Amino acid sequence: MMTANKSEDLRVRRLIEQWALAVRARDIEAVVADHVEDMAMFDVPPPVELRGIDAYRDSWPGFFKWLENESGAFEIVRLDVTAGETVAFATALLRCGTKASLTQDDTARLRLTIGLRKIDGAWKIAHEHHSFPAEQ
Amino acid sequence: MMTANKSEDLRVRRLIEQWALAVRARDIEAVVADHVEDMAMFDVPPPVELRGIDAYRDSWPGFFKWLENESGAFEIVRLDVTAGETVAFATALLRCGTKASLTQDDTARLRLTIGLRKIDGAWKIAHEHHSFPAEQ
Repeated sequence: MMTANKSEDLRVRRLIEQWALAVRARDIEAVVADHVEDMAMFDVPPPVELRGIDAYRDSWPGFFKWLENESGAFEIVRLDVTAGETVAFATALLRCGTKASLTQDDTARLRLTIGLRKIDGAWKIAHEHHSFPAEQ
Repeated sequence: MMTANKSEDLRVRRLIEQWALAVRARDIEAVVADHVEDMAMFDVPPPVELRGIDAYRDSWPGFFKWLENESGAFEIVRLDVTAGETVAFATALLRCGTKASLTQDDTARLRLTIGLRKIDGAWKIAHEHHSFPAEQ
């Protein structure tokens, strides 16, 4: 059996919770602080993929404006972390929508998967995949 | 700096390539063979999340029928693997669509993120996240 690494799990969990708080605070420097330079993102809107920290940084201002204008939510409801010594991944469900839409249905429908690498002793986010289920 | 574990990367890469071949062959036993019992999936269609190997198994027959009826593609175009000793994640872009749609546009638009754990010396898939970018 694999032995889960609980102390590393906790470090990764704290990093992701801090990142989500930074998104809610619309603090771009804190949002990008714990990422590798060559990070790759699969975001909700096109394009298919964003590569590099600059493209990642540029993806946030539009979302921050939406958060502010719509009293939007970006709230982690469940977070599961699987960490080894040097590589980790995490999955999360988030409440993400306008205040009006979440009054109608507050289900956590935003799915998030994060891949991390430990570099010089510090966990860094190397990958984010954000999506909603397809409309049917 | 993290030292990439090239031999583990290669083992994970082969496992995922075999899995994609099993999907194309519509071989359900091979598709589910290398997964943990409590795997969790964020799939393209609803629901938001599938949990457990039985729900995962049940998600495939409808897709297999679509593959067959539409001469559909499910082809990995790019696969990046980051593996430690006991935890790994992988990201991939796939060509996935009907023969007719891919004749119009053969861009690899399906994004896939996979999380793996090593159990008793064997890599197992613990998480899959499949999505297309949202329509705009």
